[in-house]
Amino acid sequence: MLTCPTPTNVSAPVLPSWLAHYRRDNLSSDLMAGAILAVLVIPQSLAYALLAGLPPQAGLYASILPVLAYVWLGSSGLQALGPVAITSIMTYAVLSPLMAPGSPQYIAMAAGLCLLSGLMTMAFGLLRLGFLSQLLSRPVVSGFISGSAVLIIVSQLKFLLGVPASGSNSWQALLSLLAHVPQTNPVTLALSLTALLWLTLSRYGLMPLAGRLGWNTRRTEVWVRVMPLVVLATASVAVVALALDTQHQVAVVGAIQEGLGGIHLFVPGLDDLRVLFMPALVMAFIGTVQNITMGQALAAKYRDRLEPNRELVGLGAANVVAAFYSGMPVGGGLSRTAINLAAGARTPMASVSAAVSMLLIVLAGTHWLARLPLAVLAASIVVAAFSMVDIRAFRQAWAYDRADALALLGAAAGVLVLGLELGIASGILLSLVTLLVRASAPHIAVIGRIAGTEHFRNVERHGVETIPGVLFLRIDESLFFGNLNAVEARLGAELLKDARVRDVVLIMSAVNRVDTTAMEVLTDVNRDLRGRGIRLHLAEVKGPVQDRLLHSPLLKTLSGQVHLSVNSAFEALAAERLVHTGLYSI
Amino acid sequence: MLTCPTPTNVSAPVLPSWLAHYRRDNLSSDLMAGAILAVLVIPQSLAYALLAGLPPQAGLYASILPVLAYVWLGSSGLQALGPVAITSIMTYAVLSPLMAPGSPQYIAMAAGLCLLSGLMTMAFGLLRLGFLSQLLSRPVVSGFISGSAVLIIVSQLKFLLGVPASGSNSWQALLSLLAHVPQTNPVTLALSLTALLWLTLSRYGLMPLAGRLGWNTRRTEVWVRVMPLVVLATASVAVVALALDTQHQVAVVGAIQEGLGGIHLFVPGLDDLRVLFMPALVMAFIGTVQNITMGQALAAKYRDRLEPNRELVGLGAANVVAAFYSGMPVGGGLSRTAINLAAGARTPMASVSAAVSMLLIVLAGTHWLARLPLAVLAASIVVAAFSMVDIRAFRQAWAYDRADALALLGAAAGVLVLGLELGIASGILLSLVTLLVRASAPHIAVIGRIAGTEHFRNVERHGVETIPGVLFLRIDESLFFGNLNAVEARLGAELLKDARVRDVVLIMSAVNRVDTTAMEVLTDVNRDLRGRGIRLHLAEVKGPVQDRLLHSPLLKTLSGQVHLSVNSAFEALAAERLVHTGLYSI
Repeated sequence: MLTCPTPTNVSAPVLPSWLAHYRRDNLSSDLMAGAILAVLVIPQSLAYALLAGLPPQAGLYASILPVLAYVWLGSSGLQALGPVAITSIMTYAVLSPLMAPGSPQYIAMAAGLCLLSGLMTMAFGLLRLGFLSQLLSRPVVSGFISGSAVLIIVSQLKFLLGVPASGSNSWQALLSLLAHVPQTNPVTLALSLTALLWLTLSRYGLMPLAGRLGWNTRRTEVWVRVMPLVVLATASVAVVALALDTQHQVAVVGAIQEGLGGIHLFVPGLDDLRVLFMPALVMAFIGTVQNITMGQALAAKYRDRLEPNRELVGLGAANVVAAFYSGMPVGGGLSRTAINLAAGARTPMASVSAAVSMLLIVLAGTHWLARLPLAVLAASIVVAAFSMVDIRAFRQAWAYDRADALALLGAAAGVLVLGLELGIASGILLSLVTLLVRASAPHIAVIGRIAGTEHFRNVERHGVETIPGVLFLRIDESLFFGNLNAVEARLGAELLKDARVRDVVLIMSAVNRVDTTAMEVLTDVNRDLRGRGIRLHLAEVKGPVQDRLLHSPLLKTLSGQVHLSVNSAFEALAAERLVHTGLYSI
Repeated sequence: MLTCPTPTNVSAPVLPSWLAHYRRDNLSSDLMAGAILAVLVIPQSLAYALLAGLPPQAGLYASILPVLAYVWLGSSGLQALGPVAITSIMTYAVLSPLMAPGSPQYIAMAAGLCLLSGLMTMAFGLLRLGFLSQLLSRPVVSGFISGSAVLIIVSQLKFLLGVPASGSNSWQALLSLLAHVPQTNPVTLALSLTALLWLTLSRYGLMPLAGRLGWNTRRTEVWVRVMPLVVLATASVAVVALALDTQHQVAVVGAIQEGLGGIHLFVPGLDDLRVLFMPALVMAFIGTVQNITMGQALAAKYRDRLEPNRELVGLGAANVVAAFYSGMPVGGGLSRTAINLAAGARTPMASVSAAVSMLLIVLAGTHWLARLPLAVLAASIVVAAFSMVDIRAFRQAWAYDRADALALLGAAAGVLVLGLELGIASGILLSLVTLLVRASAPHIAVIGRIAGTEHFRNVERHGVETIPGVLFLRIDESLFFGNLNAVEARLGAELLKDARVRDVVLIMSAVNRVDTTAMEVLTDVNRDLRGRGIRLHLAEVKGPVQDRLLHSPLLKTLSGQVHLSVNSAFEALAAERLVHTGLYSI
């Protein structure tokens, strides 16, 4: 959390600092954690590759070279990189309406998407645009993730039922799925339900059970993480033993390309660029938000320091590498990182170990993965996606601030109705609109002086002295285009209430900024008031605001004075009236 | 300007209040002003109809019935309604890529666009969404208008040169135009240049000349307004006398449908709705912004009161009427309103008179308009559009606030590069992003107590007493998702500077709001600090902020205290240290 404000050095160091200062006593834990991580993420890696509409081995390859690029150039010590759910569903959502998933063009375009979004992410980092991740409020991010999780679950239903379904958007895909429900493969469905039940129980039931039975918590946690692998292995054994794939049409992963695969140099053409540009930008942006948000949470927990811009260079480089070797986008994965930490990772060396372990696994051969049933992989995706739906965040926001809760709902609905790209755009808009709406109703008080002091208070709440014909108005908000109507309306209402007013003093002690619109409107107000024989004064203008206003039309045409303090304005205007009319005596 | 905050009654009154309280001594000025207005806006009305790709008479019809609807339901007394440049170019921009301008389908779709945007504008008013016009800052509105003016000028070049040009967007139209330049009609060009010169001189040269020669200013102003009509009449006479249209291929308006025209009941189908929805929404939004902005300026100048939501109902109703009778969108026109006022209008009765006068003109026959040369109409549009390009606004914004000046440029570029719809969307985004960027770098000060007082000041600027191990941090901005990184960064930096800190006090006197993201992040910060043996305190939390925080996780888990004032926090923490360590003495 507590990030350092010093400028980040985003140029690639010869040796990453964690490696230069590596302590050897961390080595054995790191190596072990990496090996465990590599084995445990196999099902997830295959599943996300299939979710993205790519060949299963892409998920395995994505956990090798890209991870090394990230570890070399990134800054977060413990984040584990690999295929992640959101960018996988995004790849599918963008490309599946254009071409058949798994086809050579599809694979090439996926690599192009990955390349472009990687280059954009690197550019974000090099241009120090990490702050862009602040465009989204937490409720909006939470809504976006929940909405995406629902999309992911819907996309997996066809595998759970063992039916075909297609459609150029998720709504059409859902309709097509419903039409195919009668053709459900009963054996597949039985496998799915068993897997769902087993995975759900182990994920949500094991830890409480362990607590009640007094088991070792840490060991139980490892079991929770291992369980998806156990479920998949059991299911594979069942497929092989009962010939479910050959005799009962249960869909399986199928032949996985053996060996290390090759480097594919894919350079998108101009037409491809046109199609891929916006999705790549959205993907880069989402990757940025996810990576920085998670990186900061980790850094705070482990007293580490995150350098957001360097982090983006690392993430971008990983995606560029992934484009040439694997062809699927990668990101900082929440569950991967959790496994990494639970397995005892202490430094990025654990990620190196995981990459090398995955390399060995791929070299050792992946033919034993061929008869994994897709239904069980889909079940593991659904259980993972279900945990991304964050009802608690909504309840908490609702209790604290309705506007934020509505923004959360809006972002979730945006993703579901408009899709991921327009969904994130409407999320940004929602974040900004909440900001605008809040600042558009500033607190404004008519104030007077507490007799015998230099303190000024709201006339409605305190017995204070006022000067007849002088209106002191305190504005508790920076002035900008969005709240001037409210200020003008209040001023107009106060002038209607008291026709004797000849001097208006705006107290600017809480005004941190006055934007161009506000300066122009105040200039107009000053002119209008002058036409009605009323002077406009300012008091307690903050230094930076005054510097700006100095050469503006407002100060050049101001009919009244700029007073240093409210009290000096009060004294001066009271004295003036004393001289002119004898109305007020100090 | 000084609008009243009381709720607006947006239901239609039986009789508009200006009519119920009409003073008969205004009648003669109003009738005369209306008649003058009707005659003077003829060229403009024809020109904007052609700009919209519609038959010329549409512009005349639009100045009859829709005006009456507006006068009946609207609230602005002096705004003159009619065809306006921006909605006309928008109609053309939306529909011309889809079908041939002037064709029956085109005319039907234009009416549909008008109907939809009118209904949306009415809905804005009935739902009291008038405040939406605050989504745009003035510099962004100015940039948008300047960009649109350039689009309008580009759209007229083909008429000035007398060549054909087409293209589905303005860039392609420009390229097509350049390709046709060699075919320029020399007679048309001569007419265009003469008209441009004459109109420019009369618009910008007449008033200064009058000043130097001591002419009556008011009478000269009338001449300036009359001049476009004189230019057009002269050009028509020239066309007829020299047979420029029949012998020299100078394009003219052509036959104008005689008589009053009919009511066309057009109900868009579902497919049309899909095409028209977004453009209609953008048009309704732009109409809203333009109408309210201008209405407010007028209201301020004439001590009138604008009721924004009622105004929108009137504007929307006028467009609904225009959809059935005329088929082109209407709005509050800047130059129309200026003519109306210069001609001596005192109440909305002037608009009634103008509508009736236009009715009489149409009934008297418009066949004498048939040989108006298009080149001269285009010249009058270009001169009007040129005056919409506001360089001064840019210079002023640049001098006052660079960010606003860049937003202005961005909005203008957005319109030119992305078109009107995406241009306005990027304008809103730019307004909001400037707002976000400004609030994302809050002023934060480490403070201490001025010895012997209860005043606290920045330690960097004043000699103040501090308590070793206690950090007092004052945040001069509301806390929200966009500025938490800055707050965390500053806190982290201060803690790095002084490892002895065991208590952090956040002074919230300038914090008007804490959004959900901020509350959650502060909760995390509190937990992290607790883990490091540091307590977090809050001081001078404003009432509304404290109410919200009361049941939040932050206050439930806060490791330190909530102090009423900075001074009480200072006293309490100093006393605690005195007891424990004797380090500090009061």
